[in-house]
Amino acid sequence: MKIPSVKGTRDFYPPQMAVRNFISNGWKAVSLRNGFVEYDGPIFEYLRMYQIKSGDEIVEQLFHLTDRGGRELAIRPEITPTLARMINQRINALPRPIKWFSVPRLCRAERPQKGRLREFFQWNIDIVGVDDILADAEVIFCTLDYLRSAGLTAADITAKISSRKLLAALLMHLGIAEDQLETLYPILDKKAKLPADTFAAMLAEAVANQAAVQIILKLLDIHSVGDIQTLVPDVASNRQAQSALDELHRLFDLLKAMGVADFCRFDMSIVRGLAYYTGMVFEVHDAVGDLRAVCGGGRYDNLLRDFGGPALSATGMGMGDCVLEILLRERGLLTESLSQRCVDFFVVCMDEVLMPKALDIVSRLRSCGKSTEFSYKTVGLGKQLKLADACGARQVIIIGQEYLNEQKIILKDMKTGTQSAVDESSLFVSDSD
Amino acid sequence: MKIPSVKGTRDFYPPQMAVRNFISNGWKAVSLRNGFVEYDGPIFEYLRMYQIKSGDEIVEQLFHLTDRGGRELAIRPEITPTLARMINQRINALPRPIKWFSVPRLCRAERPQKGRLREFFQWNIDIVGVDDILADAEVIFCTLDYLRSAGLTAADITAKISSRKLLAALLMHLGIAEDQLETLYPILDKKAKLPADTFAAMLAEAVANQAAVQIILKLLDIHSVGDIQTLVPDVASNRQAQSALDELHRLFDLLKAMGVADFCRFDMSIVRGLAYYTGMVFEVHDAVGDLRAVCGGGRYDNLLRDFGGPALSATGMGMGDCVLEILLRERGLLTESLSQRCVDFFVVCMDEVLMPKALDIVSRLRSCGKSTEFSYKTVGLGKQLKLADACGARQVIIIGQEYLNEQKIILKDMKTGTQSAVDESSLFVSDSD
Repeated sequence: MKIPSVKGTRDFYPPQMAVRNFISNGWKAVSLRNGFVEYDGPIFEYLRMYQIKSGDEIVEQLFHLTDRGGRELAIRPEITPTLARMINQRINALPRPIKWFSVPRLCRAERPQKGRLREFFQWNIDIVGVDDILADAEVIFCTLDYLRSAGLTAADITAKISSRKLLAALLMHLGIAEDQLETLYPILDKKAKLPADTFAAMLAEAVANQAAVQIILKLLDIHSVGDIQTLVPDVASNRQAQSALDELHRLFDLLKAMGVADFCRFDMSIVRGLAYYTGMVFEVHDAVGDLRAVCGGGRYDNLLRDFGGPALSATGMGMGDCVLEILLRERGLLTESLSQRCVDFFVVCMDEVLMPKALDIVSRLRSCGKSTEFSYKTVGLGKQLKLADACGARQVIIIGQEYLNEQKIILKDMKTGTQSAVDESSLFVSDSD
Repeated sequence: MKIPSVKGTRDFYPPQMAVRNFISNGWKAVSLRNGFVEYDGPIFEYLRMYQIKSGDEIVEQLFHLTDRGGRELAIRPEITPTLARMINQRINALPRPIKWFSVPRLCRAERPQKGRLREFFQWNIDIVGVDDILADAEVIFCTLDYLRSAGLTAADITAKISSRKLLAALLMHLGIAEDQLETLYPILDKKAKLPADTFAAMLAEAVANQAAVQIILKLLDIHSVGDIQTLVPDVASNRQAQSALDELHRLFDLLKAMGVADFCRFDMSIVRGLAYYTGMVFEVHDAVGDLRAVCGGGRYDNLLRDFGGPALSATGMGMGDCVLEILLRERGLLTESLSQRCVDFFVVCMDEVLMPKALDIVSRLRSCGKSTEFSYKTVGLGKQLKLADACGARQVIIIGQEYLNEQKIILKDMKTGTQSAVDESSLFVSDSD
């Protein structure tokens, strides 16, 4: 009986696994050098935990189940609720600032499409307990530090940055009631995904004041913080807006000091759909613009409190592996060599009687940290050299006539082709690496 | 609203995550040096896939769910069915021999107890397509190569090795019908878990011939392959048994050549509960014997065929992280230093006006691969040095008066305490590591 895999999931055969490891090892290395420490939670949590942050609509986007004890559980669709739960549980014992990262496996019961699967991996970085915009700058820097290290340049990607605080202040300044904001955010978030006409019509329907609609449409198109004053001349009189603007100016100054200004652009059309953002919001998009966002994040100062903890400010970012992998592949940054096997040694045994000696050498090399392969069958030299080549052996050790005659092994360098007869003891001289 | 974690799962706060990484990085490194390549599958599969190998009883030990499309799915309780599915799907394209490893996250809906949780990680190694006992020896060697590298000695652990082929031949030689074997294996497997009397009574009930029962009880207690002849004098006349004995002798010779004989012992009480083993079976136990098996494995030559593929022999091993962690901790092999943070640099900024320079240095150090931390607040030197110490900084860079006066930074070695004024450019000289 032949069983298929489930739609929207991936099988990671060794070449695909090499790509996945390349991506997640990059995420981990960059997190660590940016001072984040790793955490993780369970693959499933109580279903109601996800309803707190995202409401009841989330349920049908989840893989959920009832266990034998009658508990309603869900496979995690994101790790931020787990982060909030874990931090709240040990709030007084955790050293501050809390700079945590994770590379969780996540599942969403969505219709599979390009860059969006039912199971994926997502890099998360979060800084909790720092309300300074410097923490937001660090989240954006760390994100770009990874993308730059993966080979992407400012010609490939842009970090589009805005502020929920600024957006809220401007919208209210234009006469929109505070309790309308939450329904407006998901609409504004659709701008990049809809034709201009459709989007303008949707906005005109949602906002009564059509003069305000025209200003909002223009605001979403500017790329310099300074242009706001042109569109909203009396913005300086609005304290909320002015404070958000000051913060944004400082953010861009910090990003400049960190050497990533050329990747960053102010863009008020970046809203992020979720209600829970309270300050800086950002997304990284590919320059061509035919892919979904590579990642997104922002400040969320109320989430820990919503999860039953103290009011503790937080800012963070999440980057899935699917869109990223497409982008890296399109830019030629996933090379063939990634999935090429390589081992330090391949031990060729030329005579069945020498097999114990061959196994002795194989096992000792392995135990001192050298990756070592051998053939299960003592077939001819040519065939074994082919096997050595197939697993990318750097050096081949031949145990044959020379060993029987004078206890010498042949050491062959597969790159240069040179070979020499040596004592086996020379293999186990510890080197400095 | 405060939500707890689900019973039987673990939260990996940074110190626990460090231990988990220590264990799984060890597994991965040893797999690679033994010539295995990494693969993985999805976290859930079709429920019926697990019924093929383990029957319908498995269902209540699984976390299973029905998705919106009405598909019956289950969170994987083991990865071997996925391995069989994946290999069968690409049987003709995969280079042989297939030596694969994985460190999957697995879930079982069991009652949580010591060394047994509802969610855990399990190291799996498998060699597919090699029917030579040499492959079994390699699986056992690789297992012991890891345990030895983790610091365990032959005084701490024993690999107990037997053969299903031998057991079947001997049982049938003693008059037990072939179709009774499958019900007998799970009973024999219980020997170590039951009081001797209870076990003997169970066996006496299951086997009609009481003379055979006495011989079986003695067979389960011997620790030398040679002792079998004493208990079953005419064993040489049984071709099946003799062939299994020859194979076992060769296995122990190979393990001796590989330098792990002192860890290995013949033990016919190792049966493994599952029906699917067909040859060598083994378990590693702690010497004290108060823990569950650290790992188990063996040869399973029919599984790929049962999953709709060709008859392809296979042998493998699975080791969970829970019992292993308890054992390593008991033996003092999980040191405090494991979860100690450490970074290459901590940058101390002594004056708000120098913050852009500090951030410039922080970000450049990070981008050239050096883990670097700094303080969000330009508090006093003593306080910042304390922060540097808390994150285990090897060196501290102080940017203060000396930078304002003569563009010099102070570099302080945290181990020796020595410090010197240097040009910032000296930080970015690439070294050979």
